[in-house]
Amino acid sequence: MVNIETIDVFYSLHSFQEDELRDKTVVIIDVLRASSTIVTAFMNGAKAIIPVGDMGEASKIAQNVDSDNYLLCGEKDGEKIEGYDLGNSPLEYLKEIVEGKNLIFNTTNGTKAIKKSLGSSKTYIASFLNVSAIVDELKKQENEIVLVCAGWKGRLAFEDMLLAGNIIHLLCNGSLPNGSRDGAKVAFGLYDKFGDDISTVIHQSNHATRLKDIIGTSDIDYCCQVDITDMLPRLKEGMITLTDG
Amino acid sequence: MVNIETIDVFYSLHSFQEDELRDKTVVIIDVLRASSTIVTAFMNGAKAIIPVGDMGEASKIAQNVDSDNYLLCGEKDGEKIEGYDLGNSPLEYLKEIVEGKNLIFNTTNGTKAIKKSLGSSKTYIASFLNVSAIVDELKKQENEIVLVCAGWKGRLAFEDMLLAGNIIHLLCNGSLPNGSRDGAKVAFGLYDKFGDDISTVIHQSNHATRLKDIIGTSDIDYCCQVDITDMLPRLKEGMITLTDG
Repeated sequence: MVNIETIDVFYSLHSFQEDELRDKTVVIIDVLRASSTIVTAFMNGAKAIIPVGDMGEASKIAQNVDSDNYLLCGEKDGEKIEGYDLGNSPLEYLKEIVEGKNLIFNTTNGTKAIKKSLGSSKTYIASFLNVSAIVDELKKQENEIVLVCAGWKGRLAFEDMLLAGNIIHLLCNGSLPNGSRDGAKVAFGLYDKFGDDISTVIHQSNHATRLKDIIGTSDIDYCCQVDITDMLPRLKEGMITLTDG
Repeated sequence: MVNIETIDVFYSLHSFQEDELRDKTVVIIDVLRASSTIVTAFMNGAKAIIPVGDMGEASKIAQNVDSDNYLLCGEKDGEKIEGYDLGNSPLEYLKEIVEGKNLIFNTTNGTKAIKKSLGSSKTYIASFLNVSAIVDELKKQENEIVLVCAGWKGRLAFEDMLLAGNIIHLLCNGSLPNGSRDGAKVAFGLYDKFGDDISTVIHQSNHATRLKDIIGTSDIDYCCQVDITDMLPRLKEGMITLTDG
């Protein structure tokens, strides 16, 4: 039974230390686009995803695995990395490309946030695509819960905070206890104000505005869809797979 | 004439680089308690305040000035520092103690945030005590405005974000443009949700809860008062004095 008053929200991957996630149930949020891409890869049959912190780590792992079964994936500053099999657009992660494959995944903010949660008790990957599945799973937790918004280079990202607020709103049935943590109140306030039309407000966010110039709007449209899947990706021993609960 | 769409809000002193404040008009917010204490010191006749980043810097300056005219002030983790003349409670900054004096001021989050804004075009110190004076001054600015919330050890602080939201709410007459920055939307959403009863919600914040255990509630009651002064402290060449506009 989840205790809402103990839920915390970190608004960027630079706003906390690894120690603050120890023994917690952690939810990683990077709506545009790492979380949404991870969820999509599993929807299309990917076997496992190895999150890495930088290009060096990605290359090292890639050199030591069978390239028939592994794909090197990710982006730097929103763009596909030269020599990689896939970028960070969920629309690239088609069934015919990712089914049965292991993905080495390297992004500017999202995978770094995932790496910081290695000492947690459990870590799930959340997007709007699978928000209800995440909420159902969180309702079963005994641990304290931390929602980690990846943010953007140390800043908060509107769309990540909005999803955090959506999760809290669902967990507390729209009524936040007075004793809740500061981070939870900030995310809840944002969702309360802007949650009626998720797609429109996310399109107006700073990150979406930056991405539109690089990749157009189709990724953003895709990532704003709510509950199109019940996939529940979970980090276990450094690797993301589908959870068995 | 202020352009609301260019206002940004940083939610902790660790969430930005000094460069991001260059040539901007900066507002430093540390409601509990550095901003409120600085404003109070000027209400009671302090001549100037020198913000310092740590105890070492404070000691170095203190050794080189006439101790009759200078007071060594501040806190570490909420408590007065041994050997200092004053702590960080605004209630200590009485007229008979601070009038005509220069204060060397050293706090855990607030003065560090002030130090990071040395490259700004202008830097003002805001609290609930002087919020309308700050808003009137911001309305005259031609520069982009950044509201810097000191936060608490890298985390956001509810009361700082609430004041940022209050300032934005007043500047845009309660109607935030769609194109506003992510940080401004988050602060605005928080104020929209929780701004009706500032004192009650600040008393429930994480920082107030921590402080109550150390110093009781009188400081918090004091810092929640709105518009008790039109003092406008401004940083100029490393020193905070009252602005002449």
